[in-house]
Amino acid sequence: MERMQKIFKNDGKSVIVAMDHGMGLNVLPDLNDTGGILEKIIAGGADAILTTFGIARRYKDILANTNLILRLDGGTTQLSTKNTYPRLMYSVEDALELGAVGVACMGFPGIEDEAENLTNLAYVAAACNHYQIPLVAEMLPGGFGNEIPNTVENVKLASRIGCELGAHIIKTTFAGEVEEFEDVVKGSFSPVVVLGGDKVKNIGDLFSLIEDALRAGAKGVAIGRNVWKHKNPDKVTAALVGLVHEGKKAEECLELVK
Amino acid sequence: MERMQKIFKNDGKSVIVAMDHGMGLNVLPDLNDTGGILEKIIAGGADAILTTFGIARRYKDILANTNLILRLDGGTTQLSTKNTYPRLMYSVEDALELGAVGVACMGFPGIEDEAENLTNLAYVAAACNHYQIPLVAEMLPGGFGNEIPNTVENVKLASRIGCELGAHIIKTTFAGEVEEFEDVVKGSFSPVVVLGGDKVKNIGDLFSLIEDALRAGAKGVAIGRNVWKHKNPDKVTAALVGLVHEGKKAEECLELVK
Amino acid sequence: MERMQKIFKNDGKSVIVAMDHGMGLNVLPDLNDTGGILEKIIAGGADAILTTFGIARRYKDILANTNLILRLDGGTTQLSTKNTYPRLMYSVEDALELGAVGVACMGFPGIEDEAENLTNLAYVAAACNHYQIPLVAEMLPGGFGNEIPNTVENVKLASRIGCELGAHIIKTTFAGEVEEFEDVVKGSFSPVVVLGGDKVKNIGDLFSLIEDALRAGAKGVAIGRNVWKHKNPDKVTAALVGLVHEGKKAEECLELVK
Amino acid sequence: MERMQKIFKNDGKSVIVAMDHGMGLNVLPDLNDTGGILEKIIAGGADAILTTFGIARRYKDILANTNLILRLDGGTTQLSTKNTYPRLMYSVEDALELGAVGVACMGFPGIEDEAENLTNLAYVAAACNHYQIPLVAEMLPGGFGNEIPNTVENVKLASRIGCELGAHIIKTTFAGEVEEFEDVVKGSFSPVVVLGGDKVKNIGDLFSLIEDALRAGAKGVAIGRNVWKHKNPDKVTAALVGLVHEGKKAEECLELVK
Amino acid sequence: MERMQKIFKNDGKSVIVAMDHGMGLNVLPDLNDTGGILEKIIAGGADAILTTFGIARRYKDILANTNLILRLDGGTTQLSTKNTYPRLMYSVEDALELGAVGVACMGFPGIEDEAENLTNLAYVAAACNHYQIPLVAEMLPGGFGNEIPNTVENVKLASRIGCELGAHIIKTTFAGEVEEFEDVVKGSFSPVVVLGGDKVKNIGDLFSLIEDALRAGAKGVAIGRNVWKHKNPDKVTAALVGLVHEGKKAEECLELVK
Repeated sequence: MERMQKIFKNDGKSVIVAMDHGMGLNVLPDLNDTGGILEKIIAGGADAILTTFGIARRYKDILANTNLILRLDGGTTQLSTKNTYPRLMYSVEDALELGAVGVACMGFPGIEDEAENLTNLAYVAAACNHYQIPLVAEMLPGGFGNEIPNTVENVKLASRIGCELGAHIIKTTFAGEVEEFEDVVKGSFSPVVVLGGDKVKNIGDLFSLIEDALRAGAKGVAIGRNVWKHKNPDKVTAALVGLVHEGKKAEECLELVK
Repeated sequence: MERMQKIFKNDGKSVIVAMDHGMGLNVLPDLNDTGGILEKIIAGGADAILTTFGIARRYKDILANTNLILRLDGGTTQLSTKNTYPRLMYSVEDALELGAVGVACMGFPGIEDEAENLTNLAYVAAACNHYQIPLVAEMLPGGFGNEIPNTVENVKLASRIGCELGAHIIKTTFAGEVEEFEDVVKGSFSPVVVLGGDKVKNIGDLFSLIEDALRAGAKGVAIGRNVWKHKNPDKVTAALVGLVHEGKKAEECLELVK
Repeated sequence: MERMQKIFKNDGKSVIVAMDHGMGLNVLPDLNDTGGILEKIIAGGADAILTTFGIARRYKDILANTNLILRLDGGTTQLSTKNTYPRLMYSVEDALELGAVGVACMGFPGIEDEAENLTNLAYVAAACNHYQIPLVAEMLPGGFGNEIPNTVENVKLASRIGCELGAHIIKTTFAGEVEEFEDVVKGSFSPVVVLGGDKVKNIGDLFSLIEDALRAGAKGVAIGRNVWKHKNPDKVTAALVGLVHEGKKAEECLELVK
Repeated sequence: MERMQKIFKNDGKSVIVAMDHGMGLNVLPDLNDTGGILEKIIAGGADAILTTFGIARRYKDILANTNLILRLDGGTTQLSTKNTYPRLMYSVEDALELGAVGVACMGFPGIEDEAENLTNLAYVAAACNHYQIPLVAEMLPGGFGNEIPNTVENVKLASRIGCELGAHIIKTTFAGEVEEFEDVVKGSFSPVVVLGGDKVKNIGDLFSLIEDALRAGAKGVAIGRNVWKHKNPDKVTAALVGLVHEGKKAEECLELVK
Repeated sequence: MERMQKIFKNDGKSVIVAMDHGMGLNVLPDLNDTGGILEKIIAGGADAILTTFGIARRYKDILANTNLILRLDGGTTQLSTKNTYPRLMYSVEDALELGAVGVACMGFPGIEDEAENLTNLAYVAAACNHYQIPLVAEMLPGGFGNEIPNTVENVKLASRIGCELGAHIIKTTFAGEVEEFEDVVKGSFSPVVVLGGDKVKNIGDLFSLIEDALRAGAKGVAIGRNVWKHKNPDKVTAALVGLVHEGKKAEECLELVK
């Protein structure tokens, strides 16, 4: 698929930077200069930027210089104590209108409303097949809750479910050791990219995690806060490019961001 | 966007007068002469009038002389004790049929049904992008309830969420001091206009509030009851124009409405 | 609007006869001869007949001689003990197919599901604007329940809400004294017609009520059971015409129906 | 309506045989030879066969020799203990695709979800008017439950409600004495056909019931189990034709089926 | 129907291999090499492969060499403890876009939400009739729960319900003895294929079961795990072909897979 090749370079790998948190979480003051940070991420060499409808609309001109992946779901905020599943808020058609080359949705097997959530994911997968635009499924066992542990077994199952439902790209947590995560990759017939998440303590740990993930067969990364919360988003992005596309070591890349 | 420029003058600021309360609240006898009051608001120099489907339909001829912003949501009345989220009652297409140059919806992060509410907001945002008509999102943390305080932090978060969901204009409460509200404006990549609300004790306080809001970077106001409940809606509107577009002081404007 | 002028005569007033009870209530044996009674109502000079989809379809030929207003909502019957809101059962398109010149829906501010009910009403109002066909909103505070008293204040609020939502005609209860009901009329920017209801004890009381309502500014009536339960529906209709269009007194009209 | 005349013969009467039980009830082994029994029913002279989507599709060729009435609702089975309302499972368009000349739906005033049920019925009635295809409404007070007795009063009310909602044909229970059931017929402005049900003890009783119903003004029958469970469905059908179209006596017809 | 003849060979029988488990269950490491196993199943002579949207999309080229039956429903996973009904996740149109010659859905009479489930099944049946593509209904009394035993009576009832709702092919459990299962086949006016399920202890038992089912009149099989979990899926498939199309004995086929 043509749009898939825009996200994944010739080496079959991709550095996706995620800036889709602000639909529900506080991203301020870090993202006060949203446009400036986007420009830096692009300058740093990101293959694609995963972001919200609002940012995509407002910064359309800047994003024209990269590949846009639009998040289609959300609906919950940190102001709420109620736990609910991600709602489908935008359509694939909406994404196409903004010039997106990909869309993203959550897949939370194991949550109370998994049937509603996975049915939405399936619906988007079918629309993506119709329009020939890749779907990034963010497959997290149990979602953001803590009831279902993110063991290798669960991450492997969730990733496979994402593939079976029709996702073109699986975004998930690096779990277990390198040899164990290899099973996740082997079991997924769509490429796997790993997320950073809020659990990684420092950027050095993140780079090591990515190095491991790539060794296990991951085809890239989808990293957010560790990029745009950093004082030099361009350097962090460049470091990710080094890790993913140039085979640089984590330690080497750590130098780049200092 | 062409329609955005109709609402915001060349100075990038706007005086929006809101007359959208009657869908659920008692506006009588103040609005017995709805048409006459609309004419005075227009004579006073309002840039746009935010009103209901019924008023927009009935007073189409009068409203042809200003810029119409149509409220699309509602559904609860003061006769009910049940607390529910605002329903999407009209479509963007309905607004276009009435000649509207903008639409407005509530965004209540933190309420029990925030997912339903914000999904509706997102749906309208996408339709607005499709038709190139601006969306005014009235972002109130916790809605009209009292459980979530309207602190600067919460107002800032709610305003940003409105931006991320795709709103073109944020209507929200002036919270905190001028320096604090500056953070709300900085964190919102769409222009912010402030509302009056029912908490402002007198018109002098309102003008001071607006003066502060403008100093903090707000791009205008969306004021309702303080205009149409006043015996001279034209004068109040003219005073708002003075504050917003002409840089007049609150005290100076207070003279205008006496 | 052309269709509005069909319902309201040149004097801006209208005699609407309602025969829409049979969707949920027992109308037998009174309406055994539905066709014959319809003919008498038309002969009596009714400006419009508000009726159900079934009657409109079955007696299409007879109704071709008057102006048809189709009730679009319902769904509850006297066999049920469950209290629920009126459902939207037919569409404006369905009404147009039957040749209707108007449609009618309930508006029950204050009931438990007011948001669903009023959203339906708003939806119909928008469709009516699209097709240029008037909407009669039957605005009853608290619906058919007894929890919200039909005081002047509540009737005034409900009527205004109907206007704000986009109704072209308000059908409501005559409440309070003539001077008080004047406020209801003043506060409604759409014409108000009064209903009879099941509380009026005899036809003399009904005629007095109508006389008062007209004096207060009502633009006509929408009367049902008092017409079709009467042994001479033509005479009652003629009497209503006398009251509404010819300025006859209640006592005078009472003679007509003897 | 042309399709109405296909179901009702020139005498304005109809013998409808119902074979629509198998969507939820066990019809085996009686209906092992569904095709053969259909052929016998047609040979016996049935005016129309009311059946399910599956039978209509599978035995399309056989049913081409009669008038097909398609049941549109269902969804509950004898395997469930949960009591719920009949769901709308097929559309009028689906029926037209199968060559149906009529459709059938349940109307259960008084059940807990009567509003959902009757709204579905209304929706189908409007579609039927649009496509000019008759709707058989099976009006049963309280549905299949026992809470609302099938008194004449209740059957009369339910039948009238079916008419008011737009049904072209009312299928209901024969209740009360002949003189009493006359009121049901008089109160229904659409033709009434009576059902057999599972309460009729033997075929003689059924024939007597039909004789009474016809005397009371019923325009025919819609009989199921008593036909297809019988060893000679052709003979029972012929007997029904005798009763309905030829004015034969019950006793006389009883001889035909021996 | 042309597509029906693709699934069923000239002898009116079919070997369907099911690989649709991964939407909710762990299929790893068995299906790590999904593509290779698909190729073996095709090489073994399967008449059709029943699989998921994700597999159908990803392995479109391989599946072009066989007949694709797409599973349309699902939504629950082994990570959840909540018991819910299968949701309709994909449409018949989605299946056609992928080149499917058939679709499959669950039918679970007796589960708590049977009305929702069976209504979905009916909806798909109507779409299948419209597009002339066969529907495989997997009719299981009580679904995957244990409350309703899979007796011959219940399986017979469920299978018949599937037929009445419009399914072209019934997939169900072999229940009872050969003579008893004959009743299931006789009572179903659509061809019956038997599933393997997870209860069959070894492949020898499975082959015997199939032999019995075929003797009872089953028109083939829809077997999954016993094929793709086996080290030689091609040999097992060939054995199924031997049983179904060539009249081979179970013992004889057992030799083939050793």
